[in-house]
Parts: sequence; C-alpha cells; structure tokens
Amino acid sequence: MGERITGKTQLTGLLGTPVSHSISPIMHNESFAKLGLDFAYLAFNVGNEGVKSAVEGLRTLNARGFNVTMPNKTVICQYLDKLSPAAELAGAVNTVVNDNGVLTGHITDGTGYMRSLKEAGIDIIGKKMTIVGAGGAATAIEIQAALDGVKEISIFNIKDEFFERAKKTVQDINEKTNCKATLFDLEDKETLRREIANSAILTNATGIGMKPYEGQTYVEKSMLRSDLIVSDVIYNPEKTTLLEMA
Amino acid sequence: MGERITGKTQLTGLLGTPVSHSISPIMHNESFAKLGLDFAYLAFNVGNEGVKSAVEGLRTLNARGFNVTMPNKTVICQYLDKLSPAAELAGAVNTVVNDNGVLTGHITDGTGYMRSLKEAGIDIIGKKMTIVGAGGAATAIEIQAALDGVKEISIFNIKDEFFERAKKTVQDINEKTNCKATLFDLEDKETLRREIANSAILTNATGIGMKPYEGQTYVEKSMLRSDLIVSDVIYNPEKTTLLEMA
Repeated sequence: MGERITGKTQLTGLLGTPVSHSISPIMHNESFAKLGLDFAYLAFNVGNEGVKSAVEGLRTLNARGFNVTMPNKTVICQYLDKLSPAAELAGAVNTVVNDNGVLTGHITDGTGYMRSLKEAGIDIIGKKMTIVGAGGAATAIEIQAALDGVKEISIFNIKDEFFERAKKTVQDINEKTNCKATLFDLEDKETLRREIANSAILTNATGIGMKPYEGQTYVEKSMLRSDLIVSDVIYNPEKTTLLEMA
Repeated sequence: MGERITGKTQLTGLLGTPVSHSISPIMHNESFAKLGLDFAYLAFNVGNEGVKSAVEGLRTLNARGFNVTMPNKTVICQYLDKLSPAAELAGAVNTVVNDNGVLTGHITDGTGYMRSLKEAGIDIIGKKMTIVGAGGAATAIEIQAALDGVKEISIFNIKDEFFERAKKTVQDINEKTNCKATLFDLEDKETLRREIANSAILTNATGIGMKPYEGQTYVEKSMLRSDLIVSDVIYNPEKTTLLEMA
C-alpha cells in the first residue's frame, strides 16, 4: 500500500462548511503523491464560529497552508498576519500560506482568471474591460485586473444585494489602484452597448447562462463585434449562449 | 495510487517534540488502510507552549483523537474535559479521544502492561507486586495495577529525582484505591529480598538492563524462586539479564 504519510509530512487542508463532499482532498493528495510533495490535505468542517481557533491550531500544528471556502472567506481575514494586495482589496481570502508561522491570505480567483487570459495569448493590460457581476468571483477578477494594470473597468450589475458591494469595489479600485472603475445598472442596455463598444474585453462573472439557467444572456448579438474578446467564468455548460453568440 | 483521504477522512495524530522521526504515522496509517478506518495520522512538532492552541485547534478541526508524547504528557491534562481514573492518578496522558467535542485523556501504558499479563495467563489481582522504578512507565503500571485490584504494591527506586514522584504515587494509590502501596530504597537489598519473597510478581520498570546497559541488574539470583512471576518492561534486548536469571 502506498501510504505516503510519515513523521515529516505537513498538514494542508480546507476550512469551510459543508466540505465533506469536497473533491479537494482527493485532487490535492493525488497531486502531492504525483509531484512527490510531502503534504496531506484534509477537509475540516468549520464554520465562522470555529475559524479563530482553527487558524491558531493550524498555525501551531505547523500546517503548510490551507484553502478557505464558504462561509469563512471574509471572517478569516482578521486572524491572519498579512493579506496579499488583492485579498486586502477584496476583503476575502481563499488560500492561506504559512511561512514559518507567518500566515498570509491570498485570493486566487482573480489571479487564476488573469493567468488564463495570458495563457490564451490575450493581453488586456492598459486596455478597457467591461465585466458583469458583483459576487465573489466577479469582485476578485475586477480587483486583480485593476492591480495588474487594466486601464479602465466598467462594472455592470442588477440592483440586487450585491450592488452595494460593487460600489465599494469601485471605490477601492479608484482609491488604491491606477485603474478607473465605474459601476452601471445592468438594466441600462444602451450604456451596456456603449461600454462594450469601447472595451477590448467583455467578461461575464455572473451565474447567468449557467445550468439550470443555460440559454439566458443579457447581451444582444448586435453589441458584439469581431475584435471583441468575450469570456465567461461559467464552465458548465462549457459553451454558454454568450460564448456561442460571440 | 491508493490515496485514501477524502473530504470525510478524520484527522488523528501525535503531539510532541521531537516527533519527525516517529514511526507512529506509518504504523497508524498502514493500520487504518488495512482495517478500512477512515482516519489519517500526522505527527505535529509541538512543545509545551503550543499544547493549548493545538488542543483547541484539534477539537475545532474535529480530530478523532491523538497521541501525546514527551514533553507534553503532563501539561496537556489541564486542557482536556475529562481524564480516565488512571490518567487522573498519574497526572499524565498519552492518548486523547474526542467524542463529539468532549476530549478525554487516557494513559495506556499501564493498561497495556496489565493486558499483557492477562494474555499470558497471569493473574495478579488480589496479590502482592514488587516493582522497581518511578518513571513514566513505572508510575502508569503501578497506578493501573492498583486500580485493577492488585492488593499490595512494594515500589523500589534509588534516591534520584524520581523518588519524590514515587512518594506522590504511593500517597495517591493509598488514598484513592483499595491497594496498599509502600516505597523503599532500592539500595536496601535485604528489604528488596524480603518484599520479593512475599510477592507473586516482580516487575522491572526501569531502564536497567536495556541497551546500552544490558547485562546489569539489581536483583540477586537467590532472591528469586520457582513460583515467582518475573516481568520486564524492556524489549531491547528481548531477554534481559533479569529474565535470564528468572
């Protein structure tokens, strides 16, 4: 049997609830085994009330790092020693790295998105972006894009409970980065048409178009043009109506 | 690859320092895999100063239980919810069990010894025991023997730093169990001869006779007799000079 764990193996894991059906432990442990990395990854069913003692415990147990998922991404920030610029701006963390007892929080949703653009050969640095959405993924992308040097970001969202959060994101971006951000109502189709027309990229960072909402979109085909980059954070279905239109 | 860990796997482990060369993780994980038990066992390098936050963290992370080794066996007691009678008397814990957030400390050295006697068909309940030693293993055996119903225990030790501890053990046994315990100086060979003569069993629970001190013993062959049970906690060498004499 390939039991990998010895007295030197370091703990890593996931803090959140519910997590017992997460595939993260399997994914990470298989990867550690393949890459010869001496870590073990476990899921810990911990809610907001347990975050403080879990973080202190993981520090004392010398865990190498851990992921953070719902509902702990925001509450955990206060218990860490440092935040990356993006985590600081987003006020949220999905990954904690422990360097000799110093815990640094990162938010990797945005860096993952920006890397995927780069890997697809798409350069939006110094250009304008129109992005729809104000949830966790949207906020992380907006902040990372601003930090990475996107010149202007037009954010659209319906006037739901996330609209206020988007206002805060726009304010933070404008105060703390060199990017100019503006927030618009997604109901205002003419403004949407104009902002898309002035942008190098249109990004959907909402759940619209995702199962079971597939087939839906807020964009009309006439808003798109041949040299517009269109991207969608949804991966199920792989091709949303938006991407098909594009 | 047989990566066993899923989102449901519960943490177990070892708290102490140094522990990185411990074979406990390998032993336990191989056993868990063979027995189909969904636990992972890691060693955590934690000293006295980290015990409190490690215990709280392991409780929050819902660890199923953990072992405790040097230097934490005593200091951990104050952070647990319950102690087994033997752990209470010994003031030491080597195993913690977490039952839905309630942490109970146990000391298994003594129960292991008593079980080994039973498995060898030896019954010392209601009889007299002479035991040499006042360290951790000795104390655990003395306490468990008293709790299990050994009638009288004569403890011998040299007047080293453990002699005071042995006084406390004797006092605790006499106050809190039905067993009568007495402490003697191991230098007093005539008393040792007399107590062995009145005992059903002689137990060595010191390091005398262990590598690199093999060949040494404090007992003379004339103190032994054919119906005396002689046992030795030392397992390297497998047959100490004491056992050979017996």
